[in-house]
Amino acid sequence: MVDDDLHAVARGGLLHRRLLLKASALGIGGSLLTPARASEYWQNEAGAAQSEYGQPSSFAHLKREQTRGHPFGPEAGSSSSPLQNMNGTITPNSLHFERHHSGIPAIDPTIHTLTLYGDVKQVLQFSYEDLLAYPMESHHYFLECSGNSFRNTFAKPLDLTAGSLNGLVSGAEWTGVPLHYLLDEAGVKKEARWIVAEGADAAGLTRSIPLSLALDKVLVALYQNGEPLRPAQGYPMRLFVPGCEGNISVKWLQSLKVQKTPAYSREETSKYTDLLKDGTAEMFSLEMEVKSVITSPSGKMQLNRQGVYEISGLAWSGAGAIRSVEVSADGGTTWAEAVLQSDAKPLALTRFRIPWRWSGQTSTLQSRAIDEKGNVQPTRKVAIDRYSPAGFYHYNGIQSWQVSTDGVVKNVYV
Amino acid sequence: MVDDDLHAVARGGLLHRRLLLKASALGIGGSLLTPARASEYWQNEAGAAQSEYGQPSSFAHLKREQTRGHPFGPEAGSSSSPLQNMNGTITPNSLHFERHHSGIPAIDPTIHTLTLYGDVKQVLQFSYEDLLAYPMESHHYFLECSGNSFRNTFAKPLDLTAGSLNGLVSGAEWTGVPLHYLLDEAGVKKEARWIVAEGADAAGLTRSIPLSLALDKVLVALYQNGEPLRPAQGYPMRLFVPGCEGNISVKWLQSLKVQKTPAYSREETSKYTDLLKDGTAEMFSLEMEVKSVITSPSGKMQLNRQGVYEISGLAWSGAGAIRSVEVSADGGTTWAEAVLQSDAKPLALTRFRIPWRWSGQTSTLQSRAIDEKGNVQPTRKVAIDRYSPAGFYHYNGIQSWQVSTDGVVKNVYV
Repeated sequence: MVDDDLHAVARGGLLHRRLLLKASALGIGGSLLTPARASEYWQNEAGAAQSEYGQPSSFAHLKREQTRGHPFGPEAGSSSSPLQNMNGTITPNSLHFERHHSGIPAIDPTIHTLTLYGDVKQVLQFSYEDLLAYPMESHHYFLECSGNSFRNTFAKPLDLTAGSLNGLVSGAEWTGVPLHYLLDEAGVKKEARWIVAEGADAAGLTRSIPLSLALDKVLVALYQNGEPLRPAQGYPMRLFVPGCEGNISVKWLQSLKVQKTPAYSREETSKYTDLLKDGTAEMFSLEMEVKSVITSPSGKMQLNRQGVYEISGLAWSGAGAIRSVEVSADGGTTWAEAVLQSDAKPLALTRFRIPWRWSGQTSTLQSRAIDEKGNVQPTRKVAIDRYSPAGFYHYNGIQSWQVSTDGVVKNVYV
Repeated sequence: MVDDDLHAVARGGLLHRRLLLKASALGIGGSLLTPARASEYWQNEAGAAQSEYGQPSSFAHLKREQTRGHPFGPEAGSSSSPLQNMNGTITPNSLHFERHHSGIPAIDPTIHTLTLYGDVKQVLQFSYEDLLAYPMESHHYFLECSGNSFRNTFAKPLDLTAGSLNGLVSGAEWTGVPLHYLLDEAGVKKEARWIVAEGADAAGLTRSIPLSLALDKVLVALYQNGEPLRPAQGYPMRLFVPGCEGNISVKWLQSLKVQKTPAYSREETSKYTDLLKDGTAEMFSLEMEVKSVITSPSGKMQLNRQGVYEISGLAWSGAGAIRSVEVSADGGTTWAEAVLQSDAKPLALTRFRIPWRWSGQTSTLQSRAIDEKGNVQPTRKVAIDRYSPAGFYHYNGIQSWQVSTDGVVKNVYV
């Protein structure tokens, strides 16, 4: 028996984040076993041969969840990463969230080109082969859909998983050509202020990016987690604008037009404009705000025993690196600081963890991220209060999971 | 026209690593285009709907290369990551190298157990579910087969790709339970010095690990790049011993026996013992030495134009982080320092890059990695000189790629 009081860091069972758990004493534990050697089941013949391109186990085949039945059909919907079944900070390419406006085109890279035109000294056109010869960079970045977590703006909480509620965010190592090389080569005229990016999909998705941002960290991405982009992520090339709402990282990138003003395109007016409470609207609010979500324990899970669990989740911010994540087990009354994975990087998913003892009590688990600029993730009330009731973009309120006395975990508003 | 002399950092066309390339001037360049707007081909109907688990483009479907036809059949061979077609530092799970001694078992995680026994105070048995409740850590680590690059120990250089020659190394974010939790729970007796790990495959692959190492960074790994381990990588659980030869990270881990001596198992005697030149042998030489390989340009590639290329490759060391990588374009006479990707981490793959102008001359490209302990990657001659001609493990000699005047890139010994 361990005296939890020695390790308690907040009410409701939160234990010190650097506690080296003596697991048996804390009630996780393997089973004691006699005799000294278990009889195991043995493979008595050779297993499968290796393949050219591997696949998951049939016992653990994670799937994206379709988060939105779109009136225009499945080509215009979204699907989310199953955050509750994942760990670490990398999202495998097969499970990266998707949001398409007109399905996934199958593009032949030998035909596809990227044209750079408008207010430039010379119009340039790049083939895929051309771009492969440019200097590249690789960075770990999160990508989040502007509409991620929109269901938590609804009046009543939906009983769904962490992925289904908050999984329009993923993390990957993106490799590509810094856009400044191409802009420098074309020669941007000095009156230019914006770049308008257009995709080769049937929707011709078009977004405007301030030139200052385009010259900073923006890539023409060619690789994701080491391999060429997947078709669903823009193969053969996509714009990648770190820290900003996902749709501005235009997939199947086919043109970049340099100009003095934004395009005010369909996707900037009918969509991705933020309606505020006072009746006005914010446009080009591109940066995704500081946010976190506990992925375990989380919605629709069932705790089958009392004892110690590791609370684990993801945090990210479009303003920079995550400085800290605080966790509450009593609905936000008391807080304790979680351990951040040591390699937390700017504009990347950051894993946090903290031990928690569940003694059968009703508990409300929350996480609150703070970024390097000092931005603090707001409560749900504060997060929705800025916007019109019709708005549902850029929601970053604290996610609350309630654990009932019978161990059922559920999305709640507190 | 740019004066290369201003930027030259070594002979043979190597340019300053921090040079902001003015791409057009250096001859990479997109095509100049008139009229001001290209006619592109447009998608005029919706593309494919999203799937539950995505797949690569049919235009860019990378494949592992079978590197060894094994006399025992395809279940006992190896396949390598196609390094020459990849970028960044993450290897997607589908392309991680494989080496199996008796194929890939399909293990039901509800039946599989891990037994911890031997010189412990209490024998413990862990189910997969048990382990999921333990505290976890996530780290980026390389994994390299002890026999990686063995073909470069042959008397004559083989004309093969970078992956086929050196691709029994991969990088991933591994998440699992630090082994010290389990050892602590079982209570290791004070006379114990070794842990013997055994896999549940038909080969029952068995390796011994010094206890001091087992208590340090070793994980019981459950996730790879965010998703549960693939069957080919040990699903549901594998040992992961960072920085050490791959086979000691025992897949399909089913038992850990604590004892006073090593097991001297089949895999420690018939294999994975290093025969030295003087007729003696080294056992338990687990750490993988400092190493690097240029992945582009590399074997079997063809340079189609003169001009600037980015030389790019991977470096790693079992002794810690990579401190620097030097590149030569003249077969090792002069060297220049490459740029390391900023997030170089201990025991992880590190990407290096440096610009290089090819003016049609015969060039021999080499890279030489130096780790934080000051270990320097040796020449091929030095690397093979320690070992018996019959030895082929732990080869870490410098890889040389020769570019001919007609742009053909080929593996050579210099």
